[in-house]
Amino acid sequence: MSKQELKILGQDGDGACCGALATAPLDEEQAADLAKVFKALGDPVRLRLMSMIASREGGEVCVCELTPAFDLSQPTISHHLKLLRQAGLIDCERRGTWVYYWVLPTALDRLAGFLAVPQAAKASA
Amino acid sequence: MSKQELKILGQDGDGACCGALATAPLDEEQAADLAKVFKALGDPVRLRLMSMIASREGGEVCVCELTPAFDLSQPTISHHLKLLRQAGLIDCERRGTWVYYWVLPTALDRLAGFLAVPQAAKASA
Repeated sequence: MSKQELKILGQDGDGACCGALATAPLDEEQAADLAKVFKALGDPVRLRLMSMIASREGGEVCVCELTPAFDLSQPTISHHLKLLRQAGLIDCERRGTWVYYWVLPTALDRLAGFLAVPQAAKASA
Repeated sequence: MSKQELKILGQDGDGACCGALATAPLDEEQAADLAKVFKALGDPVRLRLMSMIASREGGEVCVCELTPAFDLSQPTISHHLKLLRQAGLIDCERRGTWVYYWVLPTALDRLAGFLAVPQAAKASA
């Protein structure tokens, strides 16, 4: 799934290319794929997880450090992390007992590029 | 509600200031407020509506032009538009029979600024 969504968010890796919100109406397939990514971010626990991972110096966080910040079970936290991973926003790797997570900056940049409004559109708004 | 969410997305209006995802972990209140905005975007119909409005030359669209693009009733479309408005992403004005919608570019820019990953974080990822 993440591959398909990354495609929608742009293919050339510069984060500011195709498929911007203000460029042209999205077709149904683009909208369905992008909605999955925004839906993944549309939950307070997942947003806090994203910010905890994204703001971590060194770029990766052990799940064992994420869970204690929440009044939720580890399986619940792992489920939220899985949804973020399926949306192409983070990735992970198991090392021994624990799983380590990091954000995929290109995906976030493409999402940011998708939302940013060109100056021309602002002038006419 | 939109005022509160716009506050979360940044107060100085330059779209790249405070509260970036990679700056610091969000607290519960910030996460709850921001999640509402992403949740509003986490639906294919609402994303298509956003892109139809954002990409319209002149900056505003009559609801009467939005509804025919969907296989949905006008009350359903109006409900989706209401959710986008409550999230602070669009605004509207009634003129005679019809309601006209436009995007709030500052809100989109702030959301984009929130998601964008600083170069330093990319280097360590």
